[in-house]
Amino acid sequence: MNKIEHIGIAVKNLNDSNELFSKLFGKAHYKIEEVESEGVKTSFFKVGNNKIELLEATKNDSPIAKFIEKKGEGIHHIAFDVDDIESEIGRLKKEGFIVLNETPKLGADNKLVAFLHPKTSNGVLIELCQEIKK
Amino acid sequence: MNKIEHIGIAVKNLNDSNELFSKLFGKAHYKIEEVESEGVKTSFFKVGNNKIELLEATKNDSPIAKFIEKKGEGIHHIAFDVDDIESEIGRLKKEGFIVLNETPKLGADNKLVAFLHPKTSNGVLIELCQEIKK
Repeated sequence: MNKIEHIGIAVKNLNDSNELFSKLFGKAHYKIEEVESEGVKTSFFKVGNNKIELLEATKNDSPIAKFIEKKGEGIHHIAFDVDDIESEIGRLKKEGFIVLNETPKLGADNKLVAFLHPKTSNGVLIELCQEIKK
Repeated sequence: MNKIEHIGIAVKNLNDSNELFSKLFGKAHYKIEEVESEGVKTSFFKVGNNKIELLEATKNDSPIAKFIEKKGEGIHHIAFDVDDIESEIGRLKKEGFIVLNETPKLGADNKLVAFLHPKTSNGVLIELCQEIKK
């Protein structure tokens, strides 16, 4: 794993939270992207070579809507950048982690992604992500 | 804010979690440090130029013990590296954030630290930290 690629934060209202986080970081988000298959609208901030991803649900039954209903707004996941997501999935399965997406899926920000179940990682939802080469 | 300095993760048993996270990252923690004033024992992993800090309570009434009692193990806070913590505290207070430590305090890993109340930052406990020059 190369670095923390981003931290995902579940928010109720993306506009309000974009304003809040732009005050926190002293600069605006640099892009907004909707991932329809996940029922989520995202915005991204850069902090050094890391990113903060704000996530607003666009459907009542999306994972982010359920997360907020259960736990309220807050940190949703940590994403780590990897060079070869398929080999990392294989390695982590062997180590006993439950991988939720054995076949990586298309995520926001031009990435292939796979999640690890928080049950096997100390309550932390972990995303692996590999940039798609163009 | 320069970068994500670390992500703090509350754990029940530091030894077990050190083993778990060393499997995740494919390498061991590089140090253990106790912060007696906070009732916490910490271990650190490096991932790129970021760190993951695992936090185990050493007292029943420490903030980490209370967090785990209420929410279970999981992500506790995000820490951002800043050059001048006092000026950041002043700036963020003016922006409407509640700063829990108006005078920075001594944290783990040779840092001056101050926390922002999650109430004013979308449910996210945020730590500012500035390295103490030796």
